Amino acid sequence: MNIKEKCLPCMVEQAIKTANMVNAADRDVLYKKILAQMSEMDFSMTTPEVVGDSNEIIKAHVGCVDPYKEVKDRYNRMFSEKMSEYAKKISSFSEAVKYAIAANIIDFNPIHINVHEEMERVFSKISELTLTIDDRTCLEADIKAAKTVLYLGDNCGEMCFDKLLIEHIKRISPDCRVYFAVRGAAVINDNTYEDAISVKMNEVATVISNGDHSPGTVLSRVSEEFLDIFRSADVVISKGQGNFETLEGCGREIYFMLMAKCPVVAEALSVPLRSLVCKKQK
Amino acid sequence: MNIKEKCLPCMVEQAIKTANMVNAADRDVLYKKILAQMSEMDFSMTTPEVVGDSNEIIKAHVGCVDPYKEVKDRYNRMFSEKMSEYAKKISSFSEAVKYAIAANIIDFNPIHINVHEEMERVFSKISELTLTIDDRTCLEADIKAAKTVLYLGDNCGEMCFDKLLIEHIKRISPDCRVYFAVRGAAVINDNTYEDAISVKMNEVATVISNGDHSPGTVLSRVSEEFLDIFRSADVVISKGQGNFETLEGCGREIYFMLMAKCPVVAEALSVPLRSLVCKKQK
Repeated sequence: MNIKEKCLPCMVEQAIKTANMVNAADRDVLYKKILAQMSEMDFSMTTPEVVGDSNEIIKAHVGCVDPYKEVKDRYNRMFSEKMSEYAKKISSFSEAVKYAIAANIIDFNPIHINVHEEMERVFSKISELTLTIDDRTCLEADIKAAKTVLYLGDNCGEMCFDKLLIEHIKRISPDCRVYFAVRGAAVINDNTYEDAISVKMNEVATVISNGDHSPGTVLSRVSEEFLDIFRSADVVISKGQGNFETLEGCGREIYFMLMAKCPVVAEALSVPLRSLVCKKQK
Repeated sequence: MNIKEKCLPCMVEQAIKTANMVNAADRDVLYKKILAQMSEMDFSMTTPEVVGDSNEIIKAHVGCVDPYKEVKDRYNRMFSEKMSEYAKKISSFSEAVKYAIAANIIDFNPIHINVHEEMERVFSKISELTLTIDDRTCLEADIKAAKTVLYLGDNCGEMCFDKLLIEHIKRISPDCRVYFAVRGAAVINDNTYEDAISVKMNEVATVISNGDHSPGTVLSRVSEEFLDIFRSADVVISKGQGNFETLEGCGREIYFMLMAKCPVVAEALSVPLRSLVCKKQK
């Protein structure tokens, strides 16, 4: 999915959020660097590629390798502690998918400290929530027949529900090998290798880095090692908007699981804003 | 008021709106030009200066001197036709000020065709609306003692209510000379000389251009002729956010009349968002 004009203000907004997260000095110099980078972008790129590059500029400017580290840790801890409770509530693969998609709403606004309450509120009404696009039955069948599943993670916090879903995947397909892919470098609140290990993802899956710093999966940038697994996996599950924006139309079968949080993605999927989606790309 | 980081996404958004208004071709080339211009801006500038410069880039790119012409004409016609009706409802200077401030909500979204209904709705409840900062009594006294009033206009449509207010100014101060200032070039939906003449502003005031293309009053850019009047006028009335952003703290007495439409301006005035304000700057 190429950059849309509507994405431009959001790209700037994202840079501002990150600069605030680390209380960056010389903010005007920083923004001018980012605007200069954006002025040279190729509009055939995807938005996550540009955001990833801006993020590298911010990291270099402030001398910080992981601006969201503290907040990512906080959310991972918060949800890790609650997972045994959620595990009891979630009895089927299909339900685990729904929870993992609903968890995609987790939003890392530093002033928004009641995220757990918000998630509780969403989960308390989860039986009323429906998936606007629902390819779960097909996904379940594909997983049962699969030898390898590649699960492309998205955000911290949310990752705890990904882990729970992977447990369900292994229940319905015990001999299946599951890979959990993380970003190659810290970018916004996305999962890194370190984050995945911190929630013990390695207990249920082989954690692999995609080798790139974008908040998505950019096939022209990822490592050869990742690409081999991506190409050969029997099933690929892709969480979140960033992975969707970078993999939509890439030519291989993928299950996209996400909440459509912005108009651009909602439009691309032809669903209303805030829809929950589990869509098989053929 | 210097550029705030929160203004950056809005600057980009404004460029996109204008590009859509004229259905600009080669949109990616255009946005790259604007991002490059923004990457070189001085953060000690005001936001309207940057928006004015971006707007000139768009006008040059599409070869159109007034991208909002059609929509400005439509709103000016729409409200001109209704003014005799409003004139009957508005019996005092004080009320005319309130209407002129409330009219500052007129928003030029091309898909928002019911602006007149929205204004009717606002005006039908106008007796319930209060000014969060209310220096109208002081303004009235100053106008009664004034020989010259300079009225800095803002948007088309709204301008019809400015004209009505000027009629009230002349009622309370019959010998007073009123200047109505417009932008020196078309910029967004702001009033130009041609727009002011189209609503017959010249029947009640001397229409003058400020000589600059910013959607505000940038004293370092305006013409000498305008500056003379600005410096010598007994009373200056400044409509809207753009004029406030460029004149706040300029060192002369000004009455700012506006609706605080964005968090940055609301914060600068220490008022809640959407407050109506008539504030004397000393």
